[in-house]
Amino acid sequence: MKEKNLIIVLSAPSGAGKTTLCKALLKKFPEILYSVSCTSRPPRKGEKNGRDYFFVSKEEFEKMIKNNEFIEWAKVHGYYYGTPLKNIETAKKLKRDIVLDIDVQGGRKIKKKFKDAVMIFISPPSIKVLKERLIKRGKDSLKEIEKRIRIAKLEMKEKIFYDYEIINDDLKEAKKKLFSIYIAEKCKIRRKDA
Amino acid sequence: MKEKNLIIVLSAPSGAGKTTLCKALLKKFPEILYSVSCTSRPPRKGEKNGRDYFFVSKEEFEKMIKNNEFIEWAKVHGYYYGTPLKNIETAKKLKRDIVLDIDVQGGRKIKKKFKDAVMIFISPPSIKVLKERLIKRGKDSLKEIEKRIRIAKLEMKEKIFYDYEIINDDLKEAKKKLFSIYIAEKCKIRRKDA
Repeated sequence: MKEKNLIIVLSAPSGAGKTTLCKALLKKFPEILYSVSCTSRPPRKGEKNGRDYFFVSKEEFEKMIKNNEFIEWAKVHGYYYGTPLKNIETAKKLKRDIVLDIDVQGGRKIKKKFKDAVMIFISPPSIKVLKERLIKRGKDSLKEIEKRIRIAKLEMKEKIFYDYEIINDDLKEAKKKLFSIYIAEKCKIRRKDA
Repeated sequence: MKEKNLIIVLSAPSGAGKTTLCKALLKKFPEILYSVSCTSRPPRKGEKNGRDYFFVSKEEFEKMIKNNEFIEWAKVHGYYYGTPLKNIETAKKLKRDIVLDIDVQGGRKIKKKFKDAVMIFISPPSIKVLKERLIKRGKDSLKEIEKRIRIAKLEMKEKIFYDYEIINDDLKEAKKKLFSIYIAEKCKIRRKDA
């Protein structure tokens, strides 16, 4: 009854600390698999194929789209990014839990296909704090800041499709919350037919 | 949205360590209120009115039943035990979370009235272990042991009405799980209309 593997989705507006938290979860619970995404962009320095991404050509990616090999995919700045369905299938076969570090649009698609997915939303402390940070940093123009805030606000709206919210105002506390959510989900009584 | 107070129900077959875990939760999170039950049995040595129980007479208890003052009540070995509705109402008014240390039959009644209640079931490691413990202890007759096992088995069946199961084979681990469930539930995104 409890042998069902968990699909954990971590999403956040940019800058909320999602990747840091994801890495911390994997370090704390090495039994969890990480869903390596697929991309058509070339690897950056230090990135390893199969660890950071599966690097494929544009043509290969498009072929995979046609073959329905992705749970979700998107084109960002001219490059494809996608979550291979195979990742989830492998986790299921191995009876291992799997975590997906994925944007809010992608997260929603996962939940549609896997109703049992554990949806975790990482929030910045507040839009106000986010704005203050950007202004203080002095790197972006006011116009650019307004644009970033607008996107963050839109992404924050996706929160309602998630099960949990972790407000990342203190990294140590945020980690504790994330670990607790994982431990709690492992204690959940899941119906066989769920 | 998240200001809704939690109603946490802790239940277990006897001997699973429910009360120890409940006390540990209250010590760790002193902001949680404890739902003090009402009883018609006389106080035992060391028990304080209003802390361990609200001690009332049989007549008073029956009057409270008539006035619908209990969420659930039962008669055990000739004495009444019940959970005053007022406890939950007070917690709601104060916006405080509240924990109920309650048997499986009572737990089910709480869930019926409060759909949002967080239902936690504490299990002994296994029926086999429970039986071995009872035999090893050498205190009960085989007939008595069989009876206890039968009751435990029945109570274990109520597990399906609960959200979480904590198998109490290691107290430290069990505490960690209980604290994690609480922390995770505090991160849950609750709909206003839920």
